[in-house]
Amino acid sequence: MKRSNRLVALTNFFVENPRKHTQFPYFVDLLNTTKASISEDMDIIDSVLQSEGLGFLKRTTGAAGGVMFIPESSKPKNMQFIDTLCKELEDPIRILPGGYLYMSDLLGDPKMVREIGRIFASAFSHLNIDVVVTVATKGIPLAYAVASFLDVPVVIVRRDPKVTEGSSVSINYVSGSSRKIQTMVLPKRSLWEGANVCIIDDFMKAGGTINGIVNLLDEFNANVTSIGVLAEADDEEEERVVEDYTSLVKISNVNIKEKSIEVHAGNLIK
Amino acid sequence: MKRSNRLVALTNFFVENPRKHTQFPYFVDLLNTTKASISEDMDIIDSVLQSEGLGFLKRTTGAAGGVMFIPESSKPKNMQFIDTLCKELEDPIRILPGGYLYMSDLLGDPKMVREIGRIFASAFSHLNIDVVVTVATKGIPLAYAVASFLDVPVVIVRRDPKVTEGSSVSINYVSGSSRKIQTMVLPKRSLWEGANVCIIDDFMKAGGTINGIVNLLDEFNANVTSIGVLAEADDEEEERVVEDYTSLVKISNVNIKEKSIEVHAGNLIK
Repeated sequence: MKRSNRLVALTNFFVENPRKHTQFPYFVDLLNTTKASISEDMDIIDSVLQSEGLGFLKRTTGAAGGVMFIPESSKPKNMQFIDTLCKELEDPIRILPGGYLYMSDLLGDPKMVREIGRIFASAFSHLNIDVVVTVATKGIPLAYAVASFLDVPVVIVRRDPKVTEGSSVSINYVSGSSRKIQTMVLPKRSLWEGANVCIIDDFMKAGGTINGIVNLLDEFNANVTSIGVLAEADDEEEERVVEDYTSLVKISNVNIKEKSIEVHAGNLIK
Repeated sequence: MKRSNRLVALTNFFVENPRKHTQFPYFVDLLNTTKASISEDMDIIDSVLQSEGLGFLKRTTGAAGGVMFIPESSKPKNMQFIDTLCKELEDPIRILPGGYLYMSDLLGDPKMVREIGRIFASAFSHLNIDVVVTVATKGIPLAYAVASFLDVPVVIVRRDPKVTEGSSVSINYVSGSSRKIQTMVLPKRSLWEGANVCIIDDFMKAGGTINGIVNLLDEFNANVTSIGVLAEADDEEEERVVEDYTSLVKISNVNIKEKSIEVHAGNLIK
């Protein structure tokens, strides 16, 4: 295979398989070439990925040496994306009765969801995450996007047990906003003891739901390494029950009468 | 930019942006090169994508001419994937009380979900799909995977209205298996009149849920072009209420006593 063809095949492989450790002999066989040629190919791919702010190739030497594509989202790219998102969310047409914001169109766009996933995965890249956990329903696409860049599975917490998931562990918790007692369940076989977890959700107000997930994960002796929320609501009336989290945007001052919303960058960009 | 660097940048662009029509001047500016060079790059990328069974570059000429990556999944790849999936599902450890199968681990693997999405998107590639519709919860990741390859949005039907989605249209329908009356809702602003829809779900028995979605979509004058289900259950006792669908696998003869399951390829591979 010629270098030009190899570069196309390898780039596709890395983009489709982020964080997958692959040994050089695999590529040598697959592309019918030498280790030296593969190594030069890697140099080219690595330099383009880095200059485009997409990530880098992490190479390890030795007997089990190989290569892994670590996707990243550069700070300028993040700032541009979050800026656009803030403007989108400030559109007064999004205001719903009760002061809620309609966001389903944005969450329904696979490309936008993928970018959000790339940003969180990049922010949590240094943590040793085993699994992404979310709660049904709106956090699900975001959780998959993050997990695909981290090359880890997704586990979904539900509000009600399902017969198709077998025996489950459930907890009751008090929702921050409604002050109602709610239930969360996780199938027993969905998570192993001591897993390093990243929690992803679309929205956080006081943090009651996230706190519920944390308590449920305690039952599995899981280790919560990180919490990522797309949007946090700035609410001065209520105290946050979750302290350590990363948000992309912060929604404040939803004024139903004047039809105005203020949306700023969250704490991901400090 | 040198050809080798251009090939990496362009391959990444196409893989990240399937079905996005891009005009040549965009690439000429971005990569600081000539149209002739870009055209040669496209030839190389197209030939590698085709020989690897990943899809092809569709080029259009004329004033608004450009290029679009159409992802595909080749028949041999589909057969291999479905064969592996069948063997995975036949593992007796999956049998739950009531004869249900535990599939959450497979649906929790972002890579597996992405491959299923690629296969459906490839099978429905010739249809002019505007939006992928699914019902909460398990179909959601599959729907996003299909939609990302088709470059269209996802709309999620829910069992209960949510305050964060505004006014909704709801229908009642009779569930095929439980014979209970159930509700489905879709926010009014989530779908436009006359949209060409592809319905995606994880599982179908008699088809009551899918039929409910079809009836709900009727209220939006949507045009259902295709229905894709990951697994269909072979049930001789009940009559199917949905006729025209595409399935990846077919589950039959779940024997709780003998702890055995039979799983065969669905009608996608005839």
